[in-house]
Amino acid sequence: MDKNVVMSGMRPTGRLHIGNMMGALTNWVKLQNEYDCFFVVVDWHALTTEYKNTQDIKENIRQMVIDWISVGLDPEKCNIFVQSQVKQHAELHLLLSMITPLSWLERCPTYKEQLKQLETREINTYGFLGYPVLMATDILIYKANKVPVGKDQEAHVELCREIARRFNYLYEPVFPEPEALYTEFMVLPGIDGRKMSKSYDNYIEISASPDVIREKVKMMITDPARIRKNDPGHPDVCNVFAFHTVFNEPAKVQELKEACQKGQIGCVECKKNLADLMVARMEPIHQKRKMLEQNPKIIDEILNTGAKNARVVAEKTLEEVRDAMKML
Amino acid sequence: MDKNVVMSGMRPTGRLHIGNMMGALTNWVKLQNEYDCFFVVVDWHALTTEYKNTQDIKENIRQMVIDWISVGLDPEKCNIFVQSQVKQHAELHLLLSMITPLSWLERCPTYKEQLKQLETREINTYGFLGYPVLMATDILIYKANKVPVGKDQEAHVELCREIARRFNYLYEPVFPEPEALYTEFMVLPGIDGRKMSKSYDNYIEISASPDVIREKVKMMITDPARIRKNDPGHPDVCNVFAFHTVFNEPAKVQELKEACQKGQIGCVECKKNLADLMVARMEPIHQKRKMLEQNPKIIDEILNTGAKNARVVAEKTLEEVRDAMKML
Ligand code: SF4
Ligand code: SF4
Repeated sequence: MDKNVVMSGMRPTGRLHIGNMMGALTNWVKLQNEYDCFFVVVDWHALTTEYKNTQDIKENIRQMVIDWISVGLDPEKCNIFVQSQVKQHAELHLLLSMITPLSWLERCPTYKEQLKQLETREINTYGFLGYPVLMATDILIYKANKVPVGKDQEAHVELCREIARRFNYLYEPVFPEPEALYTEFMVLPGIDGRKMSKSYDNYIEISASPDVIREKVKMMITDPARIRKNDPGHPDVCNVFAFHTVFNEPAKVQELKEACQKGQIGCVECKKNLADLMVARMEPIHQKRKMLEQNPKIIDEILNTGAKNARVVAEKTLEEVRDAMKML
Repeated sequence: MDKNVVMSGMRPTGRLHIGNMMGALTNWVKLQNEYDCFFVVVDWHALTTEYKNTQDIKENIRQMVIDWISVGLDPEKCNIFVQSQVKQHAELHLLLSMITPLSWLERCPTYKEQLKQLETREINTYGFLGYPVLMATDILIYKANKVPVGKDQEAHVELCREIARRFNYLYEPVFPEPEALYTEFMVLPGIDGRKMSKSYDNYIEISASPDVIREKVKMMITDPARIRKNDPGHPDVCNVFAFHTVFNEPAKVQELKEACQKGQIGCVECKKNLADLMVARMEPIHQKRKMLEQNPKIIDEILNTGAKNARVVAEKTLEEVRDAMKML
């Protein structure tokens, strides 16, 4: 049996935060050992909403890929590349656009929602409407059958399946119908308790220095009912505790929980412990980061090799596609 | 000053008729001497309406290009190639799709009209809506500043100008704003008096044999008021006369006009003369056709060389585009 193929992409948003690291990236690092993986910086996707703000795109790609590698993605185990470096995506996108009914895109639940959210930004373009076709292209061009996505992307994977079915029905069966791969992973809160996100300014970057980590941990919101050190605490509503569950050993987490509930540990000390753990955990990642920043050719090389390998697979699929469609 | 650049395309409909020859093709043959010309078989365009009927597309491309060369397009003077062989079109199409407001496409007068006409054929696809973006791409990628079009394509050239302006405004001035190039040319009627068209089955193919030409000329509708040979005729309403104005010498046309009006020439004789003229005119074209059919490698070679040259120009434009957009 063929190895399962995974495709997953991220927009080039620049340096990632430890929420991304503990979520999607940790998941990718696991997937690279089990599947044939294509991890793609989807820079063309970014244009669907950010076509007016492209000045930092190159640096954002570089910083994001440095984060990917630093946390453990291994270019020997998976394909890492930039979407726009594999021109075959553009051709397949054009071909699939010809068979995708407009109504499928218009009824896509994320479409109108996003349109409303981003109302002021003139994103009602042809390319923005076609975003799911471009995403389907990224998946189908590698014949991926597993797509790790969040629940909010479920509709796009379903649309991709419909496009694959329609192609296979109209011409010849070229594409597998991909399945969404749901993984339960930790959603790390931001320092203010909301979801960690670049738009809330409540995040800690993967690249944050020890000083910044310590400072941000100090700013974290704890159990608001705890005023004095000896007050019994409620770890379940405490942001710092959520971080301990991720960065501390399970046994220690249990200990802390009890100590907090009994009022035996103060928040200052608890935060200090967390900061120490985080600084220690990030240390090897920062070393790798530093090395990659000092040797820009390594990332260039990884992306070049990744694109070269991806092109071979993509071109093979396109040959089958052109053949099925009877194109020259 | 730079030579003006012309881009013009035809969908791969297979063998062309002498209406096409006397119209667009004769115009192209003239343009190749005055401009830097890109004549493109737009096979991706064909998919916007014919995605379900692609089985003959390769043969249709070949037969059409044989006609192009046979009537006088000279690959030494102009670039002749197939759109899908220059993948850069797909990339630029994707990039331009990101900056093209949906409303520009939806309000395009040809869009709703065609949609209505082709109602039964499930063409309401994403690609069909984007047809003007693809056409703009074909023009802009060669920085064409002159686009020979019929009045029905005027809105598309205007849309192309708007897309060029928007790109130049958002990023950097890369594209010239192309102008429509209107040329008065003979619209040859079909043998039934309506416009010559493949959909009316009233056409004579460029490749039609002398026998077929003679037969079709015999079937031509003449002045319906003329019953006997000596009745005075009305050349202005006569289909055969329209053909004489194209295939006969001006002085002879004048003579015929008078003879017909005076009832001095019969329609049978008049048709015989026309058929002789047409057979003679088509003779060298048929010889060239035959040679090209017997040596398929010549067309292969022309299209390969054409695509190779087009790619160089297209890639140069794309480099400027990527640079202006700050893409990798
Ligand atoms: S001791 Fe720690 S877990 Fe308990 S409330 Fe304070 S910061 Fe939170
Ligand atoms: S003589 Fe010729 S021009 Fe006159 S009506 Fe007959 S076919 Fe037409």
